[in-house]
Amino acid sequence: MRIDLNADMGEGYGAYRIGQDEKLLHIVTSANVACGFHGGDATIMQKLAPLAKEHGVGLGAHPGFDDLWGFGRRAVHMSARDLEYMVAYQIGALQALAAYSGEPLRHVKPHGALYNMAANDEGYARAIARAAKTIDAKLIYAGMPASEMQKAADNEGLAFAREGFCDRLYRDDGSLTPRSEKGAVIDDPEAAAKQALSMAREGEVMTGTGARIKLKVDTLCIHGDEPGAVAVAVRRALERAGIELRAMMPSSPD
Amino acid sequence: MRIDLNADMGEGYGAYRIGQDEKLLHIVTSANVACGFHGGDATIMQKLAPLAKEHGVGLGAHPGFDDLWGFGRRAVHMSARDLEYMVAYQIGALQALAAYSGEPLRHVKPHGALYNMAANDEGYARAIARAAKTIDAKLIYAGMPASEMQKAADNEGLAFAREGFCDRLYRDDGSLTPRSEKGAVIDDPEAAAKQALSMAREGEVMTGTGARIKLKVDTLCIHGDEPGAVAVAVRRALERAGIELRAMMPSSPD
Amino acid sequence: MRIDLNADMGEGYGAYRIGQDEKLLHIVTSANVACGFHGGDATIMQKLAPLAKEHGVGLGAHPGFDDLWGFGRRAVHMSARDLEYMVAYQIGALQALAAYSGEPLRHVKPHGALYNMAANDEGYARAIARAAKTIDAKLIYAGMPASEMQKAADNEGLAFAREGFCDRLYRDDGSLTPRSEKGAVIDDPEAAAKQALSMAREGEVMTGTGARIKLKVDTLCIHGDEPGAVAVAVRRALERAGIELRAMMPSSPD
Amino acid sequence: MRIDLNADMGEGYGAYRIGQDEKLLHIVTSANVACGFHGGDATIMQKLAPLAKEHGVGLGAHPGFDDLWGFGRRAVHMSARDLEYMVAYQIGALQALAAYSGEPLRHVKPHGALYNMAANDEGYARAIARAAKTIDAKLIYAGMPASEMQKAADNEGLAFAREGFCDRLYRDDGSLTPRSEKGAVIDDPEAAAKQALSMAREGEVMTGTGARIKLKVDTLCIHGDEPGAVAVAVRRALERAGIELRAMMPSSPD
Repeated sequence: MRIDLNADMGEGYGAYRIGQDEKLLHIVTSANVACGFHGGDATIMQKLAPLAKEHGVGLGAHPGFDDLWGFGRRAVHMSARDLEYMVAYQIGALQALAAYSGEPLRHVKPHGALYNMAANDEGYARAIARAAKTIDAKLIYAGMPASEMQKAADNEGLAFAREGFCDRLYRDDGSLTPRSEKGAVIDDPEAAAKQALSMAREGEVMTGTGARIKLKVDTLCIHGDEPGAVAVAVRRALERAGIELRAMMPSSPD
Repeated sequence: MRIDLNADMGEGYGAYRIGQDEKLLHIVTSANVACGFHGGDATIMQKLAPLAKEHGVGLGAHPGFDDLWGFGRRAVHMSARDLEYMVAYQIGALQALAAYSGEPLRHVKPHGALYNMAANDEGYARAIARAAKTIDAKLIYAGMPASEMQKAADNEGLAFAREGFCDRLYRDDGSLTPRSEKGAVIDDPEAAAKQALSMAREGEVMTGTGARIKLKVDTLCIHGDEPGAVAVAVRRALERAGIELRAMMPSSPD
Repeated sequence: MRIDLNADMGEGYGAYRIGQDEKLLHIVTSANVACGFHGGDATIMQKLAPLAKEHGVGLGAHPGFDDLWGFGRRAVHMSARDLEYMVAYQIGALQALAAYSGEPLRHVKPHGALYNMAANDEGYARAIARAAKTIDAKLIYAGMPASEMQKAADNEGLAFAREGFCDRLYRDDGSLTPRSEKGAVIDDPEAAAKQALSMAREGEVMTGTGARIKLKVDTLCIHGDEPGAVAVAVRRALERAGIELRAMMPSSPD
Repeated sequence: MRIDLNADMGEGYGAYRIGQDEKLLHIVTSANVACGFHGGDATIMQKLAPLAKEHGVGLGAHPGFDDLWGFGRRAVHMSARDLEYMVAYQIGALQALAAYSGEPLRHVKPHGALYNMAANDEGYARAIARAAKTIDAKLIYAGMPASEMQKAADNEGLAFAREGFCDRLYRDDGSLTPRSEKGAVIDDPEAAAKQALSMAREGEVMTGTGARIKLKVDTLCIHGDEPGAVAVAVRRALERAGIELRAMMPSSPD
């Protein structure tokens, strides 16, 4: 039994710092590195690549909209073609900086609004898949299970890593409770750890209504803005349960 | 006897168009493609890669300062480290879009103010060499002959393509007459063609004082903003003289 | 009987040029000047302000999304508060450059996707009204008649200029036929001139179904990308009909 | 006897935070607010304007190069004309957001590399003066005493506020010891407070060689990145010495 822990990283820009990359590298097994569009820059990318290698953390691209001011959180409507190339651009940029570590990229996980839109929009979901496939057909596409992203990965023949969220409340249909609703974010480290364990071990999660639904995942997301108690508790709980922590890899058969 | 003809391309951005890329592809043998910093974007890069292949034109990266407003023409002072990674980022981005054509990048030629600064600044010149070498040691570094760029290429073990300018007046020391001086730009197509021929065939150029100086070059630059009479005249003159036109390749021994 | 002719201007950026500003200044009576977000820059704004004054053309702000790559044509979702301040910022920037001419700004007309979204979104429409009102309560808000924009202007006590499009086909409900549909853009100069005249003189327009609907307007939009036959024909038709051409001013009672 | 305490503020951008604006507002009497080019955005500007008013802090524009990545710290070479308009743009943008507080801007102090370049470059220094004067001839130009900035202010008839640095070591010629040299930054709160007092009270400062030189100043700069011990110590020392703290105002006769 094994699982991956992923977190977004490298989202600073120039003089701006955000998140706590160095602490996170001790906790996660996969790093989603911002590629300079919603955040991130070449200097940060270059720094993270060897650090990730040193910590045995798998390196992945975290492309977002070309929206630094909005930090990639604003929904932007554009053609799927343009989006595809914009994503390819970002993956390629990170590949170049990853050359400083000699380690290839492992995965691609879209950021913020792009993630949310791609979960439901076939065109966006496929644009990301095509960009990844064109550059390196071995790249793993990470995203929401059973979403348009997973369909796109299947259609393009890319491996897919089903992602679960440790600190977000699920709804009965497997979607996330919107942040605007009360209780949407699980702040309590023990509750988050319990949810992580439930997904990793049983392939299930308890929803806001108290129901238990199936949710098989390959990777668990930890939020980088607060790599404190929650991240540590999740990691510890998984280790205690004897679950192997290992960088993202292709979805195993259910 | 052979030579390469290169031109800067893909320098539009979003809705903005500049230069005449499609016409140039019929004239040149190497394309220096803007990488999204001083100009250029993923959609334009993706379009040019297969077109260059189709025309048998060698694809190269044309990295510049992160200065879209100044079109990379403003001198910017930054650390050589940051510059190195910024250049690597741009090369990688173009590599990703070049994957749509299946053709690898051949060369790297810095743009505008970066070109001018790197000709004289060891740190900048080396930063570009190191970025290229880290990503792909087979990349050719194109730049001013006998400049810091050539030294950097030599020091890093990269092939170097010595570049000559068809439409710029040279000074006796082999440098270019600044654009601010009268006669610095050669507008007359026949005069430009004559200068191109002189560089390609005799490895010499006539300076503003009327002296003839040695200037062995591997590639001749044509300016993309006016792919009209000058570019056509240069190409025709070279063809008539029986000089083989071929994409940039490593400097041959003198 | 009088009407205003407006066009978007100053939408270049740095080395990039777009549209034909100087020709348009001879045709229009109001200029919507880009403010550096979707296009435009300080140097262009500074150049246009005195030129507009010289031609007796009313100067207005043309704020757009902070989306240079998309030229402000991509729909962006953001909070109305942030949008309000972003619009205020743009108006203020243009005011500063207008100080070089000594003429105050007359109007504000949102650009591209922002225009389209504000026509239907109360929050966006009001954000623009509030920004304008905070800076200068005499600014005229230009936009779609009977849209959320007009309501917002009314609610905030701003004058509103109802805008008609000379070269766009209307639908029976007064909205524009989407560009994706055939015939949406009226290319024929005489047809466009006829539509302009109908709006200016009768306050009516013929729709795609052949119906005539009421459409009282205070200003007619000419597209700046082709200030050719259409713009000239519209201007000439209005002049021949004896309609006074005058810079945008508050909506007159119907 | 009175003096102004100024600090740079509002230098975050979108999701990025930098500095400690709210703490500083309790300490300073003038705020130099970033205008969206090297840092800052409309939302931050809008927030600071009323807060500054509430604290009785004078609001000023802090224009910088259009270099968000470099945080305005990279030297950029451009024409004085373009710079002038770029500075005017930024001042106007802040004026618009200041309209939310009803308080006019008091001063303009260039940021980072622009400050350093303008201290020594007549063209840059004058560009800033002209931009300010065109917009509002009552604006105070804040900068290095006896620099090109002061000359430019004099030539344009603008009031000038001579600025001293509490936590930087001076050289015998009145210039600052470069940050690259040891001891260039005064970390010790008591030492900084002593230097502040010496400038405010005696119009003198002790240099790195131990010499005392004349340095009459109207405003003292506190660095916003560490509004901790140094800023507090400086403020307290000035208050204890009975020196009146008051927002920047025109240079008084020596």
